[in-house]
Amino acid sequence: MHSFNPPKRTLMGPGPSDVSPRVLEAMARPTIGHLDPAFQTLMDEIKELLRYAFKTENKLTFPVSAPGSAGMETCFANLIEHGDKVIVCVNGVFGTRMVENVVRCGGEAIVIEDEWGKPVSVDKAEQALKDNGDAKILAFVAAETSTGVASDTKALCALARAHDCLTIVDAVTSLGGSPLDVDGWEIDSIYSGSQKCLSCPPGISPVSFNERAIEKIKNRTTPVQSWFMDLNLVMGYWDGTGGRSYHHTAPVNAMYALHESLLILHEEGLENAWSRHAEMSQKLREGFNAMGIKYLVDPQYALPQLNTIIIPDHITDEAAIRAKLLNDHNLEIGAGLGALAGKVWRVGLMGHSAREENVNKCLAAFKAVMN
Amino acid sequence: MHSFNPPKRTLMGPGPSDVSPRVLEAMARPTIGHLDPAFQTLMDEIKELLRYAFKTENKLTFPVSAPGSAGMETCFANLIEHGDKVIVCVNGVFGTRMVENVVRCGGEAIVIEDEWGKPVSVDKAEQALKDNGDAKILAFVAAETSTGVASDTKALCALARAHDCLTIVDAVTSLGGSPLDVDGWEIDSIYSGSQKCLSCPPGISPVSFNERAIEKIKNRTTPVQSWFMDLNLVMGYWDGTGGRSYHHTAPVNAMYALHESLLILHEEGLENAWSRHAEMSQKLREGFNAMGIKYLVDPQYALPQLNTIIIPDHITDEAAIRAKLLNDHNLEIGAGLGALAGKVWRVGLMGHSAREENVNKCLAAFKAVMN
Repeated sequence: MHSFNPPKRTLMGPGPSDVSPRVLEAMARPTIGHLDPAFQTLMDEIKELLRYAFKTENKLTFPVSAPGSAGMETCFANLIEHGDKVIVCVNGVFGTRMVENVVRCGGEAIVIEDEWGKPVSVDKAEQALKDNGDAKILAFVAAETSTGVASDTKALCALARAHDCLTIVDAVTSLGGSPLDVDGWEIDSIYSGSQKCLSCPPGISPVSFNERAIEKIKNRTTPVQSWFMDLNLVMGYWDGTGGRSYHHTAPVNAMYALHESLLILHEEGLENAWSRHAEMSQKLREGFNAMGIKYLVDPQYALPQLNTIIIPDHITDEAAIRAKLLNDHNLEIGAGLGALAGKVWRVGLMGHSAREENVNKCLAAFKAVMN
Repeated sequence: MHSFNPPKRTLMGPGPSDVSPRVLEAMARPTIGHLDPAFQTLMDEIKELLRYAFKTENKLTFPVSAPGSAGMETCFANLIEHGDKVIVCVNGVFGTRMVENVVRCGGEAIVIEDEWGKPVSVDKAEQALKDNGDAKILAFVAAETSTGVASDTKALCALARAHDCLTIVDAVTSLGGSPLDVDGWEIDSIYSGSQKCLSCPPGISPVSFNERAIEKIKNRTTPVQSWFMDLNLVMGYWDGTGGRSYHHTAPVNAMYALHESLLILHEEGLENAWSRHAEMSQKLREGFNAMGIKYLVDPQYALPQLNTIIIPDHITDEAAIRAKLLNDHNLEIGAGLGALAGKVWRVGLMGHSAREENVNKCLAAFKAVMN
């Protein structure tokens, strides 16, 4: 066995996205201790930069030391107590995963289903809230990574609040790529991932909780079932007040990378980053349309950072096409997931990948392999 | 805010340890997709190298995509079903944490306590096994990171087996630093960390489960309470047979680092690495003894990779000494934890930190600050 030298890919799948050399370089800086005062300064800066990216003043905003699926579980495990009724809106794979989380945390899931490729129906959610006056939480995916659909987060959160429910919002694919306003939309709890529009290596999950959510956690009558994810404990480590107590060993170098990727976002400006994603997505759409390739999702609720295209009928072996893109062009795109497996491809334009150079490369590669 | 440029420390605390430039360089290589065939090759090599480091043929040997405390919870959450009786031997902070895990997983913890700084009493464990014929699991820490004590893992595992109990063994600090033989000692499940004697950045937790453990997991009548840690799902991702299914997005670059650190261990040879740790620890002990500094732990069960020294009586502000070591000498050592806070310092000689250069630097720095 030898040192691993990865091939140089262009990452245009559903994540990870291309990582900027600046971020890779930051990650390779010498490791320091997770209790070093210098690391604590870094933690403070990361929290501040995450608040910027989430558009929130939430004190409890920090990166979970594990991938997005652990960020998801952190929200559910902390906010659900045994028997809590949770309304889950499912319009793709990650909504389904939310249901799994509710059940494993001892909650009762009320599942509202919408077609994959369509947004969550605000009307159906409202009806479910009316029908379940004792529901405690409304959970949904703001940006479905399996379909490329944006749902109306603002409207859903307003509804939840009107019915005295907390919200759990999956923003794994949104953060940094398309409009998201945690405070403006009054989102109670939210999780994301490092490897999508932040263009950081995978492994870290930024989360944020407002005071309503914290109050629910603090008033739990039973302990959080996960020790690793228990926010009552994690807060003591990530919270600056009264000195930090040891909880777990933070992934130090991954935090260097996250810090650098958030700095890049801050330098560009959040709204500028959203515009860039929209613009690149438009260029890609024009190119695909010119090739006769159709989109799964109506443009009015399509995510710019994740473009789901329908595999043309004449393609009999879609995996072979993806393999050709990868092997001949070093281009990674995503397969369909779940109900959409074999029917769609997912082309990501996330973070550092959302560049004109990538759009052109992608269109050229598709032209080459589809002929 | 600017890019974060960490100070250049010498890491001789309880972890993270100094990371070799080779490992940092590997980690900064371009990110590829977690489903890329090239990444799957890397995963296979990591599993093979981990089997070497653990001395096991266990098929289910892989790195959990989160820190050691998540590796711990992966063992408990998968092996415990509600009501299971678990005997936990506590002789330090991490034994206490095991108890927390048992309770949160719905198990009943039978706690056997030993003095902090002493190994787990094999006699007491045997008595507890006799007194609790219905116990399902014996859990203990092979190498207590809070005290620097090695317990008799082989004897404890033999006892557990004789009483038809599975074992959960904490080897966070052992792996790569001192004798550990998963198959030879018939350990059923074990977890470790990347940032101790493997000298990899923190954030990853190698684990291994034998067939007896897997059988228990497969025969569960209730789902594992954590979706993220459910081995029934994770196995589908890390297991090579029948193609890999998506579970979560692996921390790709952290895996490059782990691979490189395991390669370094393999090149040196596991037994040679153990000898090096023992030799460096002996040199350090001689130096401290010459300065009149006493050890907490009897040499016969002291860990070479974690040297716990008693803070001399004349030191009235131990934190000031650690701050001086850090600020004037860029040397990080560890404070005492829990019951030993303020009473001991923990001096790590782990992995890449276990070098003569570090021993000399450490002794010189102590001489300078203690005068």
